[in-house]
Amino acid sequence: MRKILVIGIGTGNPEHMTVQAINALNRADVIFIPTKGAQKSDLAEIRREIVGRYSTRPGQRSIEFSLPKRNAADPSYVRGVDDWHAAISAIYSRLFAEELQADGTGAFLVWGDPMLYDSTIRILERVRLAGDIAFEIEVFPGITSIQALCATHRIPLNLVGKPVEITTGRRLVETFPARSESAIVMLDGEQAFAKIDDPEAEIFWGAYLGTPDEIAISGRLKDVADEILRKRAEARARHGWIMDIYLMRKGADFDDE
Amino acid sequence: MRKILVIGIGTGNPEHMTVQAINALNRADVIFIPTKGAQKSDLAEIRREIVGRYSTRPGQRSIEFSLPKRNAADPSYVRGVDDWHAAISAIYSRLFAEELQADGTGAFLVWGDPMLYDSTIRILERVRLAGDIAFEIEVFPGITSIQALCATHRIPLNLVGKPVEITTGRRLVETFPARSESAIVMLDGEQAFAKIDDPEAEIFWGAYLGTPDEIAISGRLKDVADEILRKRAEARARHGWIMDIYLMRKGADFDDE
Ligand SMILES: C[S@@+](CC[C@H](N)C(=O)[O-])C[C@H]1O[C@@H](n2cnc3c(N)ncnc32)[C@H](O)[C@@H]1O
Ligand SMILES: C[S@@+](CC[C@H](N)C(=O)[O-])C[C@H]1O[C@@H](n2cnc3c(N)ncnc32)[C@H](O)[C@@H]1O
Repeated sequence: MRKILVIGIGTGNPEHMTVQAINALNRADVIFIPTKGAQKSDLAEIRREIVGRYSTRPGQRSIEFSLPKRNAADPSYVRGVDDWHAAISAIYSRLFAEELQADGTGAFLVWGDPMLYDSTIRILERVRLAGDIAFEIEVFPGITSIQALCATHRIPLNLVGKPVEITTGRRLVETFPARSESAIVMLDGEQAFAKIDDPEAEIFWGAYLGTPDEIAISGRLKDVADEILRKRAEARARHGWIMDIYLMRKGADFDDE
Repeated sequence: MRKILVIGIGTGNPEHMTVQAINALNRADVIFIPTKGAQKSDLAEIRREIVGRYSTRPGQRSIEFSLPKRNAADPSYVRGVDDWHAAISAIYSRLFAEELQADGTGAFLVWGDPMLYDSTIRILERVRLAGDIAFEIEVFPGITSIQALCATHRIPLNLVGKPVEITTGRRLVETFPARSESAIVMLDGEQAFAKIDDPEAEIFWGAYLGTPDEIAISGRLKDVADEILRKRAEARARHGWIMDIYLMRKGADFDDE
């Protein structure tokens, strides 16, 4: 049966690769690399660098394919995503049939860890359940942007014994700080932190973490929010894209006991 | 100035080590390895194996030291932890003074990732702030038990666009599912999942993840809770200790749109 390896590659630093991920990479006959857009092309370049640095398998092929874009104009978000996943499923299905032998092994190199706000596993399950092509999935963890953020700031994620919420920009305003005093915010296209008005809130922010362009800023939200907005806008204009993440925090170790 | 490297080593599989962590390991003159108790001694063994497998630095020394236990009998939890951290701080401070040259580099190999429910960074900051001995800290991420859990079950952590809470057994009953439909539970000494009575809840459970003793069970909570309790009790008796983690989940992708 075909095997599909879903390999976490970390967030931009090729040295985020684990020994397990390197070994998995070298089991693959074919590596599937998505390309498209300014961001996608920088990210494709990092994947090529990882293959170049760690692949030792003779005859291994890399196949680049272009990913469709989600139709953001669809008034139904659910239908928009569903159609998009269906289109990607069709591409995967065709790639596996055309590029892999009946007992061949393919690999996807997934940014960060495949479990975190990524649909590769979900879409592969969809292809598998459709039943047109049989394969097994294996998953290999990779360093996430949450970990890169905490390592750069040299901080624990959680306060002692307290919970942490991982959420999106869209939801932060509803939940911080009433529901979660420590919130990791990802996929924030609207700089939701700037809408939080809490004199005690702290922020630990980072962009392009793990890459040579890494930026990190931390402090009381009220003191650093403007600086983050400014540096973020500058960097985004310069690169044509940005990936950023932050921890919003209120409270201290032990203050609930 | 002295340097202290805080290196995440993953959760039991030596191949969880990243290339970055291996390089950091090889910058250290001295590696500090805590030992104590049945669990601590198995975990110390994995650290020794990692050093044996990846260290290429001539003359590198490993120093094993025993960690004090927290006084669980202290009626004040905060004071109990504070005293415990103070005792560990004193040990660290002494180890650095005695074992590291003034420009030497020491390393701690931290289980999983140092940012996640671990006090190494917190205690090192305490030693640094005390000011008796000057050093700089660098942190290197490692694969967490959350990632090992999701990779083993081949699942995404989050439902599409939805948040995830990372919490402790003690808090689960308050928050699931009303506050968080996807909850990762760590440090659960009381099998809090067994107190959840929700016919729709699903659980993805794993113990000793990443090690040869790994166990994983998933399904509707009502169908598998007893099996998990039984297997957990058996494994715990056999090993003398257990480390387990689970994802509790209710709902589905897109059901909130
Ligand atoms: C689609 S999600 C993928 C997350 C990825 N699977 C991971 O493990 O981090 C993309 C979001 O991750 C965060 N992110 C990913 N890489 C990042 C980086 N290098 N620096 C900062 N944020 C990053 C940003 O919040 C971005 O919007
Ligand atoms: C003190 S915390 C340390 C967490 C660690 N820093 C990490 O990144 O996973 C210990 C808790 O982590 C979880 N854990 C750590 N290693 C594990 C493993 N190999 N299998 C299952 N759970 C694990 C358990 O919930 C355990 O109670």
